[in-house]
Amino acid sequence: MTKTIGRLTWAVAEGYIPPASTGTTRELTSHETVCILNANDEDARVEITVYFADRAPAGPYVFTVGGKRTRHLRFNDFADPEPVPLGTDFSSIIASDVPIVVQHTRLDTRQPALALLSTIAFPLD
Amino acid sequence: MTKTIGRLTWAVAEGYIPPASTGTTRELTSHETVCILNANDEDARVEITVYFADRAPAGPYVFTVGGKRTRHLRFNDFADPEPVPLGTDFSSIIASDVPIVVQHTRLDTRQPALALLSTIAFPLD
Amino acid sequence: MTKTIGRLTWAVAEGYIPPASTGTTRELTSHETVCILNANDEDARVEITVYFADRAPAGPYVFTVGGKRTRHLRFNDFADPEPVPLGTDFSSIIASDVPIVVQHTRLDTRQPALALLSTIAFPLD
Amino acid sequence: MTKTIGRLTWAVAEGYIPPASTGTTRELTSHETVCILNANDEDARVEITVYFADRAPAGPYVFTVGGKRTRHLRFNDFADPEPVPLGTDFSSIIASDVPIVVQHTRLDTRQPALALLSTIAFPLD
Repeated sequence: MTKTIGRLTWAVAEGYIPPASTGTTRELTSHETVCILNANDEDARVEITVYFADRAPAGPYVFTVGGKRTRHLRFNDFADPEPVPLGTDFSSIIASDVPIVVQHTRLDTRQPALALLSTIAFPLD
Repeated sequence: MTKTIGRLTWAVAEGYIPPASTGTTRELTSHETVCILNANDEDARVEITVYFADRAPAGPYVFTVGGKRTRHLRFNDFADPEPVPLGTDFSSIIASDVPIVVQHTRLDTRQPALALLSTIAFPLD
Repeated sequence: MTKTIGRLTWAVAEGYIPPASTGTTRELTSHETVCILNANDEDARVEITVYFADRAPAGPYVFTVGGKRTRHLRFNDFADPEPVPLGTDFSSIIASDVPIVVQHTRLDTRQPALALLSTIAFPLD
Repeated sequence: MTKTIGRLTWAVAEGYIPPASTGTTRELTSHETVCILNANDEDARVEITVYFADRAPAGPYVFTVGGKRTRHLRFNDFADPEPVPLGTDFSSIIASDVPIVVQHTRLDTRQPALALLSTIAFPLD
């Protein structure tokens, strides 16, 4: 289909996990997500670094995205080496050993009607 | 106007058909869409492959977008070779035989007020 | 600051004017917008062509964006050579004689809480 | 990780601070934001110029974004050399002396349910 399916390094300058939710299910809990497509045959090892306003970066958070698979990773679920704090501005850089495509999405249910945002991440290579 | 109107291959890393709707019309039913502009004179044959977290990709789903026409395709309507499951994370790659422009939009009416997201897709060539 | 501030030709594959509104002011009427930044010294002559699913394109719609000015143009207001129909899928190509930057935004108040989407347009040159 | 982490100059063609809010906290006050990631070791000096429909540009607004830090700057808070008016269409150009990544986000709580939009800015260099 195409030889190079994506890029190795991506940045998402926006980042914020809404600290409250009106939804009660996992689907309708406020969340901040990076969606990663690995359209290659081999698995991708993905490292995510999280940047803050007033402290040193956290991470890397390490994930595997299988060949010809997608993963929609929630920053809410990040635990190792440390959780990402709620209600805090951050940014992230996503680095992979095989080309991937990255998109950033938020679902916000702080008020009693959900809101969504999404944008393609910015490729750094 | 311009010689190359778009690209041949696009990726959308985000994908999710909200499994419920408060709207009752087709317009206000939750949906996930790829908008495809074919600004060339000749028709475009478009093949869409859908990637999942835990199974092999589905497709290709094949569509024609006429010359100097646009089509806003809903993943909800995809049927051949198989439907796209609701409430499931996915990604997609859109490949065309003539240059096109692709944008991704979701309308979500799970809660009683609609939400929207949209982003330009990522060009792979 | 920078020598080339933008591009000459842009595409927005998504396009839809919600046919209803719960808002009663111009600000809260559902609308579809292209935001155009002309950061150059000279005026920009901008031509917008609108593409549909099942008919020939409409336009060009011609606008002037002054040097070092921005205009946020609503498709709802387009009149010459013909209005853009409500509730209808479309795409658009924005061509300028000096480099510009284009972003696409929708405000949708069909249900009693507004929704927004926005994305940078796709540069064709 | 990568040698060039971002770009020096970015444009955001959309810009509008909703002039009202149903939220009462800073978090739920309607706001227009540029999120800036500086993933380099050295600090970034960032200058933002704001363009309007019918008057000369305002600025530059000058900010420092520390090395390996992010700042999510609200246009609502801009004061020097002058505030950015509410309810007014604008665009912005963000110029830095070291490479950065810029994303644009709005939170709108004019109606009693928040709405969000976000998009990566457009790199001019």
